[in-house]
Amino acid sequence: MRRTGIDLHGGYVYGDTIKYDFSANLNPLGMPESVKKAAREAIGRSDCYPDPFCSSLNERIKEQWNVRGDRIVFGNGADDLIYRIVYAERPKRAVIVTPTFTEYAAALENVDCEIIEHRLSAENGFALDETILDKLTEDVDILFLCNPNNPTGRLIDRSLLKRINRACERGILLVLDECFIELAENGASHCLPTSELGNNTVILRAFTKTYAMAGLRLGYAVFGNKEDALLTALAGQHWSVSVPAQAAVLAALGEQDYVKKAVKLISSEREYLTAGLEHLGFRVFPSEANFILCHSDSDDTVMQLESSLRSEGIAIRNCWNFSGLGENYFRVAVRLHNENEALLEAIEKVTKWQKT
Amino acid sequence: MRRTGIDLHGGYVYGDTIKYDFSANLNPLGMPESVKKAAREAIGRSDCYPDPFCSSLNERIKEQWNVRGDRIVFGNGADDLIYRIVYAERPKRAVIVTPTFTEYAAALENVDCEIIEHRLSAENGFALDETILDKLTEDVDILFLCNPNNPTGRLIDRSLLKRINRACERGILLVLDECFIELAENGASHCLPTSELGNNTVILRAFTKTYAMAGLRLGYAVFGNKEDALLTALAGQHWSVSVPAQAAVLAALGEQDYVKKAVKLISSEREYLTAGLEHLGFRVFPSEANFILCHSDSDDTVMQLESSLRSEGIAIRNCWNFSGLGENYFRVAVRLHNENEALLEAIEKVTKWQKT
Repeated sequence: MRRTGIDLHGGYVYGDTIKYDFSANLNPLGMPESVKKAAREAIGRSDCYPDPFCSSLNERIKEQWNVRGDRIVFGNGADDLIYRIVYAERPKRAVIVTPTFTEYAAALENVDCEIIEHRLSAENGFALDETILDKLTEDVDILFLCNPNNPTGRLIDRSLLKRINRACERGILLVLDECFIELAENGASHCLPTSELGNNTVILRAFTKTYAMAGLRLGYAVFGNKEDALLTALAGQHWSVSVPAQAAVLAALGEQDYVKKAVKLISSEREYLTAGLEHLGFRVFPSEANFILCHSDSDDTVMQLESSLRSEGIAIRNCWNFSGLGENYFRVAVRLHNENEALLEAIEKVTKWQKT
Repeated sequence: MRRTGIDLHGGYVYGDTIKYDFSANLNPLGMPESVKKAAREAIGRSDCYPDPFCSSLNERIKEQWNVRGDRIVFGNGADDLIYRIVYAERPKRAVIVTPTFTEYAAALENVDCEIIEHRLSAENGFALDETILDKLTEDVDILFLCNPNNPTGRLIDRSLLKRINRACERGILLVLDECFIELAENGASHCLPTSELGNNTVILRAFTKTYAMAGLRLGYAVFGNKEDALLTALAGQHWSVSVPAQAAVLAALGEQDYVKKAVKLISSEREYLTAGLEHLGFRVFPSEANFILCHSDSDDTVMQLESSLRSEGIAIRNCWNFSGLGENYFRVAVRLHNENEALLEAIEKVTKWQKT
């Protein structure tokens, strides 16, 4: 079925005055100065078409991953690549877990793909378990997994991931979206080792989140085989990655300490935020990511909470349009300490006000 | 048939040292300072997701065109929109003229669309004439027209355009690519009047060429009906236009004098370049655009010419991969006077050298 309206996402800071944005899951440290500087300098070179092959970047990423350059495709954010992969592969039947990032289904619907939902349960803290393996039948063409999963924040157990990857070898393209993994404390130990990158595996990464450069747009995909990589490159325009985005990411690759610092901050602030939100009466689901999924048992709807916070200059992500979640869920990013404090104070204020 | 390799285009200035780029058809005045400034300032705001609706820009463009805002879709360059339109419409049979911009066919091939080529003839100076109407049969779903056409530089006669538009009303989506029209002296009198924008018409425009901001990427499409506009918006990712591109274009809209100046310059320099190229023995086709199509009768191939010029730091567009042209064609952009002079001198130098 084709969609009849535009999906809503987090990170929409236009129209209202938003002081603290908890609705987008970006590195709370903001864009590094070196990245901004590189992007600004690149404006002067932006009267030329961008390098469609992102050659300098390809050199760096292929070394980092120890793969051939023709296995890597760059896109205008990882989201661009989700659509490209779907248009390139034209799957007839897909498996996605729910709740998860809504753009997988959106892209799949554009090619009339049948979507099999594998429901994660709140009782199980939305963890992915081996029951997913039963869904990977012969008639499935593609599987999307988000690790850690958005909006639940759960990482996938590595041994389960390896089993899923092996099950996909029979002819299912496994699209492993690792856009948030670099901000997760134990992210690296939940990745598929590059040596196990199967012929049917593709890994998605984004600089958008890790370096808080969502407005510049750059993501990439690492494919297990060059045929799928080429089809994906051909599934969209030639010049998808802008000149400033390419320059910004080249600078970002030098900012490893900044990422480490962010990971540490996120870990401790996630604890702080979790405790605070639980204290305010919300059910907080275990998360290993830079965002937290919450459930409200209150009579006040999440829509009321969202709207009240927005008038306080704070944006949260109402999760009503995630398949598999109801109206009582919301997601908040883990931000800087003073911001997290401000969020907790604001929630306390607006929920008290609603109760009077 | 699906493509097995990546198409080559003009504007690839990477790898070699290119001093003068005649291979990309951009405004020879370069990016206006106000546009650069706006883009640089926007880097500081690029830690947020871009506005997916390009709201501020939509306000301006809908006024300019006197259409409703829901008829306009913005993309990561017009090329992004070509693919989106094709994925949204899923045409079974398309008509394109040849030679023309190669991305129409590339996008159409991705949905296994049958492509009917309407060949323009060199004898007729590659002008589009009414024989195109015979191709617009009931089984055709989409027609791509580029006005002025790339790489030939010819504008479409307005009365013919109106007849084509009426013929398409029966159920053919007319995609009218006007990406170069703002740089053509009499461009405005070769457009379809907005009042005649049919239910089946979509017009493509790009800031890329008009404001020499190819590295920033922003194009838009104006649709005759909102359903096609929505399907096109849904056919790709949510955040396709970057924060700096949106800011740059808002500034560009204030640069009307700059565009007028460029149009004047292009007109006189096109004459100068045409005379110079004819003097050097090339057949130069009549052009009304900011680029010129040339044919070489020499025994030296265009590939040799291209390669020799590249070692002089000059890029031209070898037209071998345009369907409908052979190996003996090349295209050059109309640039600043000193650049055009340098091109003519370099051609004289390298062709003399080849003959000794």
